[in-house]
Amino acid sequence: MPKKEKKRLQVILSEEQDALLTRAAYELSSPERLVSKSEVVRLAIEKIAKELEEGRLELAELLKRLEAQEE
Amino acid sequence: MPKKEKKRLQVILSEEQDALLTRAAYELSSPERLVSKSEVVRLAIEKIAKELEEGRLELAELLKRLEAQEE
Repeated sequence: MPKKEKKRLQVILSEEQDALLTRAAYELSSPERLVSKSEVVRLAIEKIAKELEEGRLELAELLKRLEAQEE
Repeated sequence: MPKKEKKRLQVILSEEQDALLTRAAYELSSPERLVSKSEVVRLAIEKIAKELEEGRLELAELLKRLEAQEE
């Protein structure tokens, strides 16, 4: 298999979002498997994309949350 | 209110994940409101963290997806 192309994405997070991310990584970690914040982000992207595709998300609700983030 | 602290996070995505992210941003966008990939990432982080906290996620399933990502 050819080596996969990679994209570099830079995201600015609030302290609170960063703390949420750290906590999520910790919750997914175990003594056998340490999960990084980057891994959580990749997982979260796949999850939200899948749910959007399946129409399982309330777009209005998501957009409301976006507005709240930017205040 | 004091200016919020910001954290910079760099994530490496596969081309496929980047494409998912672009599509999600497009689906959340409208002629009145353009949603960026960074916004989708922030939203996805808040969402996965909230669901983990509420115990609504199947951890085993998430970890399986993580392993699949790294292949």
